[in-house]
Amino acid sequence: MHRPGTFNLDDPMARLNEPGPAKTAGQVARGTAKSPTDALPSWNEGRTKRSIIEFVERVTAHSGPDFVAPSQRIAVFDNDGCLWAEQPMYSQLAFAIDRVKALAPEHPEWRAKEPFASLLKGDLKSALAGGEHAAAEIVAVSHAGMTTDAFQRAVREWTRSAQHPKLKRRYVELVYRPMLELLRYLRANSFKTFIVTAGGVEFVRTWAEDVYGIPPEQVVGSVGKQKFELRSTGPVLVRLPAVDFVDDKAGKPVGIQRFIGRRPIAAFGNSDDDLEMLQWTAAGEGARFVLLVHHTDAEREWAYDRDSHVGKLDKALDEARMKGWAVASMRDDWNTIFADPPRA
Amino acid sequence: MHRPGTFNLDDPMARLNEPGPAKTAGQVARGTAKSPTDALPSWNEGRTKRSIIEFVERVTAHSGPDFVAPSQRIAVFDNDGCLWAEQPMYSQLAFAIDRVKALAPEHPEWRAKEPFASLLKGDLKSALAGGEHAAAEIVAVSHAGMTTDAFQRAVREWTRSAQHPKLKRRYVELVYRPMLELLRYLRANSFKTFIVTAGGVEFVRTWAEDVYGIPPEQVVGSVGKQKFELRSTGPVLVRLPAVDFVDDKAGKPVGIQRFIGRRPIAAFGNSDDDLEMLQWTAAGEGARFVLLVHHTDAEREWAYDRDSHVGKLDKALDEARMKGWAVASMRDDWNTIFADPPRA
Repeated sequence: MHRPGTFNLDDPMARLNEPGPAKTAGQVARGTAKSPTDALPSWNEGRTKRSIIEFVERVTAHSGPDFVAPSQRIAVFDNDGCLWAEQPMYSQLAFAIDRVKALAPEHPEWRAKEPFASLLKGDLKSALAGGEHAAAEIVAVSHAGMTTDAFQRAVREWTRSAQHPKLKRRYVELVYRPMLELLRYLRANSFKTFIVTAGGVEFVRTWAEDVYGIPPEQVVGSVGKQKFELRSTGPVLVRLPAVDFVDDKAGKPVGIQRFIGRRPIAAFGNSDDDLEMLQWTAAGEGARFVLLVHHTDAEREWAYDRDSHVGKLDKALDEARMKGWAVASMRDDWNTIFADPPRA
Repeated sequence: MHRPGTFNLDDPMARLNEPGPAKTAGQVARGTAKSPTDALPSWNEGRTKRSIIEFVERVTAHSGPDFVAPSQRIAVFDNDGCLWAEQPMYSQLAFAIDRVKALAPEHPEWRAKEPFASLLKGDLKSALAGGEHAAAEIVAVSHAGMTTDAFQRAVREWTRSAQHPKLKRRYVELVYRPMLELLRYLRANSFKTFIVTAGGVEFVRTWAEDVYGIPPEQVVGSVGKQKFELRSTGPVLVRLPAVDFVDDKAGKPVGIQRFIGRRPIAAFGNSDDDLEMLQWTAAGEGARFVLLVHHTDAEREWAYDRDSHVGKLDKALDEARMKGWAVASMRDDWNTIFADPPRA
């Protein structure tokens, strides 16, 4: 996935089948051994894994009643908590907070203005006491006024260096190995894989191709206003401090229709924020597959669902049980959580 | 391109290499004979055709200095006037006018309200006297309140039957054969081809795959607001009477960044409304290709540029000459204009 002239994020995809370094907690294997031809070796044998494979075999069987033409094999994945870790906060917020700290010398007024004042004092809890509004303001202010090119450079610089405070890995190394295998397995069966995230589309696109093998044009996300300007140095696109579209909850089916233009046949999420996307996918005609990632592994990752502040999973879990959607328990279904760390 | 369960528009792509029926004016060959291995047989030999082929050879030459990785071979095409005819009015407006007429019995109030009153009296000129605003209102009102599924059915029904008043062909048969060849030639060289249109994205997506071989997710266009609703019959997306994003002029680079997320290396347009898209494409680093289709053939299609109401080409023509962009003269560069009509 390395493109000339761009930063190579030590693509975890490329390393899936290589012998890794000594295993850390996240890599300790659980469950049964896999055959070498298994496309999903990090998934334990059982109902969840079987349901994935049975669905793919049904829609790809040329003579079967559930055959779906390749052009219609659209699979959508939530990002935070589904493809990579989302605790204790969404990575884009961590990026925005780091941007605010870096930009603070140019903004003395922030020392007297919340949520920036608390943030700059290191009091994250007070800074985020304003909830989603405070977080959105931090993100909007820290991203505005940049050209798209400068924004991409800033994100690349950050993903190259910033580390998760607890796991001591770079954020782009917090991707789930079973989900990377699943993405690759679906693509090998002519699925087109899309991310559908509440995160900023430009943030996720910067690294999604290196990390997931998903090109920019297959990332659907929240969109900020931008403006085209002809400068003396040439044309630029400038980010404005205003949100144009929020790709979350009931916005996810709208985002799918807007960006992709047809209904997916498979959808993967992990929280109530994905519920409408899963409903929209499940309600289409023909074979459908819907799966929730359930965070049940306090030892290797985190365990949270109905009462969680980030990634709350309550109504969608009930609906999954009622409608027979697949639920992947991290503890029971995944023998490995994280993709291998990059070679030092 | 026929998908199970959807309407087959007698894909002109599939017919490109078949012997067609007796030629009509649009099919009369001009210029020199082509070799059977020529990927662009409807293009006359000359500077324009040569510039296309030279560009493609440069960016695909593995060992050359201008090589571009396949994932970055993004080519964008305006639709109206670039891929199909746009005179005397954009086809989506023709569709909307037909919708207004069909819906009129349910809307007695339209008989006293412009632009609908004039429209229903058959006085198109007065109806459109309000310019873009009147046209936009006709489009918005005639499309609102429908579910996305119902809208797609209405467009399919219309494309199957409605005829262009002058050319006496269905609108989907007004596509330019040289441009179909060009789309196919680029795709054969691992380009990903996108439409970037001021037209409604849902309108164009309904037939773009059948007609151009371009899937819905590769159509960028103007976007109306939509709402997700859980009805007793299941979830639906409903079109609201409000425009969310206008993918025209300076909006085109914004739309490209929003939907595709990376800068194209080739762009094709035909009017001043495409100028910013062409500037944005041309200003990227590395090899670039920019082409204007110039409507110069009053005999086989139309001849118009600087003074035209629809598809005005003035500033962009000057900039093309100044910057050395390619300009395809329909009269001189194309030996055939339209793709073959469908087999009766």
